[in-house]
Amino acid sequence: MDQIRIALIGYGNVGQAFARMLEKRREYIRETFDTDPVVTAICTRSKGGILQPAGAGGIDTARVTDDMFDKLIDAIKIIDFGEYDVMIELTPINIMTGMPATRHVERALQRGKHVITANKGPIAWAYRELRDKAEENGVQFLYEATVMDGVPVYNLTRETMMGCRITEVSGIFNATTNFILTEMEKGIDFEEAVEEGRRQGFVEADPAMDVDGWDAAAKLTALMNVLMDVQITPTEIDREGIGHITKEDLDAAAEQGKKIKLLCQGRMEEDGDTGILKPVGSVKPTLVDQDSLPAIMDATSSYVSIMTDLMGGVTVIEEPFEPEIDHTAYGVLSDLLRILNDTKIK
Amino acid sequence: MDQIRIALIGYGNVGQAFARMLEKRREYIRETFDTDPVVTAICTRSKGGILQPAGAGGIDTARVTDDMFDKLIDAIKIIDFGEYDVMIELTPINIMTGMPATRHVERALQRGKHVITANKGPIAWAYRELRDKAEENGVQFLYEATVMDGVPVYNLTRETMMGCRITEVSGIFNATTNFILTEMEKGIDFEEAVEEGRRQGFVEADPAMDVDGWDAAAKLTALMNVLMDVQITPTEIDREGIGHITKEDLDAAAEQGKKIKLLCQGRMEEDGDTGILKPVGSVKPTLVDQDSLPAIMDATSSYVSIMTDLMGGVTVIEEPFEPEIDHTAYGVLSDLLRILNDTKIK
Repeated sequence: MDQIRIALIGYGNVGQAFARMLEKRREYIRETFDTDPVVTAICTRSKGGILQPAGAGGIDTARVTDDMFDKLIDAIKIIDFGEYDVMIELTPINIMTGMPATRHVERALQRGKHVITANKGPIAWAYRELRDKAEENGVQFLYEATVMDGVPVYNLTRETMMGCRITEVSGIFNATTNFILTEMEKGIDFEEAVEEGRRQGFVEADPAMDVDGWDAAAKLTALMNVLMDVQITPTEIDREGIGHITKEDLDAAAEQGKKIKLLCQGRMEEDGDTGILKPVGSVKPTLVDQDSLPAIMDATSSYVSIMTDLMGGVTVIEEPFEPEIDHTAYGVLSDLLRILNDTKIK
Repeated sequence: MDQIRIALIGYGNVGQAFARMLEKRREYIRETFDTDPVVTAICTRSKGGILQPAGAGGIDTARVTDDMFDKLIDAIKIIDFGEYDVMIELTPINIMTGMPATRHVERALQRGKHVITANKGPIAWAYRELRDKAEENGVQFLYEATVMDGVPVYNLTRETMMGCRITEVSGIFNATTNFILTEMEKGIDFEEAVEEGRRQGFVEADPAMDVDGWDAAAKLTALMNVLMDVQITPTEIDREGIGHITKEDLDAAAEQGKKIKLLCQGRMEEDGDTGILKPVGSVKPTLVDQDSLPAIMDATSSYVSIMTDLMGGVTVIEEPFEPEIDHTAYGVLSDLLRILNDTKIK
């Protein structure tokens, strides 16, 4: 039986959830693809890494202990010198630069390794270069978990809308702000809503990236780059957060039969002077009708609407799923299955 | 350059829209797949068929005239003796039997031809046999246009949810009844709503199959058979139409903050006596909250919700798209592109 060797760059909640899911689906993978998936390298930010020597087999991820990590083994060492077939990038995102994830992806592709990223930085900042590098090196570069967790937005369009041109992408992409706005509708103010979100685990200790719209802008950028084949970065998005929204604003909206939602929208627009089409994206608190799709999105639901030339619009909704971390891990697993599937065909 | 030869069995609105769309995308197909798509046979119910002799090239579908049809050439003659690579089944559905479409599909597969059907009869009545026959003969059997027109429901799950088990399918599958109920909410009665639908082209001359829930039941059966890998037929669905719904019923619902929608639901249920899991499906007018997803579906929108074990729920919404006939034709075209894509890989 063949092996597929996996390097996990980043081993936080998603990495560990992925390792558990891989264990559960090991038999399915062996039977379906006649291939045994083995983890040959793990890298953490604080503890260092574990790198199996060539031919030493896989790491038993259920039995990883702190003393197995070597402080001298870092991500680049694993990526440049490790024995693996697929690098999975799971480090925390830096929305302002896309680093170091973009560098990790680039170097693995350069070595002719398949890459899966759950980190949207590389797609938001350097999608086209990375896609081209993957193609040059005859490997796959997949990123399904970067938007809407395991919901197959990218695969949907790549695999099932052949021949269609995507003309617009829109939706609610950030669950934290949607949760905060939904709580505020109940009559509490912004700070209380943030506190409630922290208590329930939906809001991070420092929610600035969410609240200021940066997370949504990065996701919008990622979707536009991939689906509309453009080159746009998060800083080019016309971005407004929800930090200034008051419960009075929400009350005023309700009186008009409306709600306020953080909507994202990306499309091509003609430049007034040159007439050249260029990508334009916005993330903004927006008044929506109470019986519209964005208005009825549950606190932690999100959706993506795609407009195409040949088949009109399609909307995909991600329903809340607990634990969310498993949902993201499934996005990574589905990319791995795709690599196994396509490798088998060839 | 290779050719892919197409037999169109049925040449009504969808068949003609498909032929136009194929013409528009011919250059794209030639460039992408290095293959020229040619229509070598066309069959109609009333006028007979056109069947190109071997090596005679394709039919110029933009210039088909009535005198080109031969009364003696019927569907079976084309399917059994024609020169083609892909048979596209576009005859009108008989929901009670799935015939003659099922026979057409079976005989083409038996000859080792790829089959695309926009007719849901074969999927609702004989999915498993046809799937197995396609596999035995090493050909593809695709049916994306049978539910939600061109929206890629089947492809979504087949191509992008690998390793997931689908545990439930639900939604609003029939636009005609949704239109009638939406009109009745404005205060008119059933007959007036049907008349209005006929005027706008959303309701057929004889709407019984829609109104009585048969169309929705056939779609539910098709989805369950394919996505949940069961064997269930339209007559086994617990089915109730909307013919008895009055505007008073809708008023009473509105007073409770609710609406009435024709909901479809399919899932596995344990048999009380034997404990064996069996597929159970229902199509029924159902009270739903006014801020729920089914309630906000526009007159001619529809949606499918899929519940899975590994990644929770995903919902896909089909937005209204004019002309609808092009949407269905795109579903057929996307299946053809899939065959071209997969044939190229092999």
